[in-house]
Amino acid sequence: MEPSRVQGTGADTGAAARITGTTRLYAVLGDPVAQVRAPALLNPVFARLGEDAVLVPVEVPADGLADAVRALTAVRNLDGLLVTVPHKAACRDLAESVTPAAALSGSVNALRRLPGGGWEGANFDGEGFVRGLRAAGREPRGTTVCLAGAGGAGSAIAVALLRAGARVTVWDADAARAARLADRLAPHFPDRVTAARGHRDADLAVNATPAGLRAEDPLPFDPAALRPGTLVADIIMKPRETALLRAARAAGCAIQYGEPMLAEQIALYQEFFRLG
Amino acid sequence: MEPSRVQGTGADTGAAARITGTTRLYAVLGDPVAQVRAPALLNPVFARLGEDAVLVPVEVPADGLADAVRALTAVRNLDGLLVTVPHKAACRDLAESVTPAAALSGSVNALRRLPGGGWEGANFDGEGFVRGLRAAGREPRGTTVCLAGAGGAGSAIAVALLRAGARVTVWDADAARAARLADRLAPHFPDRVTAARGHRDADLAVNATPAGLRAEDPLPFDPAALRPGTLVADIIMKPRETALLRAARAAGCAIQYGEPMLAEQIALYQEFFRLG
Repeated sequence: MEPSRVQGTGADTGAAARITGTTRLYAVLGDPVAQVRAPALLNPVFARLGEDAVLVPVEVPADGLADAVRALTAVRNLDGLLVTVPHKAACRDLAESVTPAAALSGSVNALRRLPGGGWEGANFDGEGFVRGLRAAGREPRGTTVCLAGAGGAGSAIAVALLRAGARVTVWDADAARAARLADRLAPHFPDRVTAARGHRDADLAVNATPAGLRAEDPLPFDPAALRPGTLVADIIMKPRETALLRAARAAGCAIQYGEPMLAEQIALYQEFFRLG
Repeated sequence: MEPSRVQGTGADTGAAARITGTTRLYAVLGDPVAQVRAPALLNPVFARLGEDAVLVPVEVPADGLADAVRALTAVRNLDGLLVTVPHKAACRDLAESVTPAAALSGSVNALRRLPGGGWEGANFDGEGFVRGLRAAGREPRGTTVCLAGAGGAGSAIAVALLRAGARVTVWDADAARAARLADRLAPHFPDRVTAARGHRDADLAVNATPAGLRAEDPLPFDPAALRPGTLVADIIMKPRETALLRAARAAGCAIQYGEPMLAEQIALYQEFFRLG
């Protein structure tokens, strides 16, 4: 055949063309995965660091997760996993060991190989959120936080805020779930965490529920009930400007978008996976 | 955080940056995978066709293959698998159905989803080889071929050459393996396939053994024993110029490199996976 035909397939000479047999793999596990931002954020980091690695989305249903993780463990060129909804709690149980923050939050969003086999889990959602606050000039130490949502993300954010020295009141539509989280964390952070719905005295009000992903969702809480000047943070990234943040702005609150929580995790992943 | 820090991670804006949550996956399964060329060949094709898809290497040991394929079957954004050494025969058995050529060769190198679940296997090694010959102006119909190697690639090439109308004599260091292949194919191609070592009358002599991958390998056969002008083909792609091809050239033979066999398969994969 003519060499031109081989080269003719190379219309794009970008980074996908850089994927070869030696490329190391990372996968982000979720269901669904269409919304995940990690590949678009991390692949350029691999390129910048000169890492021959690629992060791809892997959509696995919950009932196939354990099999998938076991099979991925056997994939020799797979170096790490990121984990998103709904697998964060299940992956905590599939990990051989977890970091203290992940143990407290009960969920993981990253897994790296252990030298002896298996996976070590970490959760950077909370620290990413706190770093995002600090990057915006907001120090959580000594503040009072009202947190809506005691699920995976809410739990991780609660842990990180408590470790950073905040007082946290957590609320969830499933009141028992909020109570369980507060009960689990209270021994580690005495007198600083309670399950209740009360925004009155908050310095910071956080939405860690899914409310706001869809245009028709109700507000997770009413910013008009907050003191003016309270910071309202949403962890939803899409849409960037949620109905909650619009209402908060209208009520004279400061606002914090969802993106910094993920963007700040890039450096944490880089360290965790020993990149660069 | 400052927007510049998010954007600062985007040093590379190439195709890996194009991988998002909606990207469809293809995997090439092998052990090892460091040598596989398919990602470098197929990813530019995806880009050229405007397919939001990426092919990544997945190194799985033979004893983990069945688990891996089962787990990959549950990955919803995975559309296809390519298969290389040593998994081609095992993947034939893991497929729910196979094409006639794959059934004859006993191995597959590509799997696509069946509408009802599971996988349909095909083997394009042989047809890729024959297309490579034809692209170089060599029509196999009516020719006599000596084929060294009755493994996965050799079997597929034997089938394709026989279907193209050649007579094939197959030889293998494991004589029983060559005999089994000839016995299996003989009913389908009466009087055109035998297991024997004889290069004297060959129009085409093919190396489909691994001999030549390493510099210290012995020649799979001696081109000096061939008639001058015989075409000697090697399926080894790395090195491009194997010791066999050098010896063939020195003996006055024509030569055919390994690359066209793979390059010609690109169009076959494109059709099989319904791309573009």
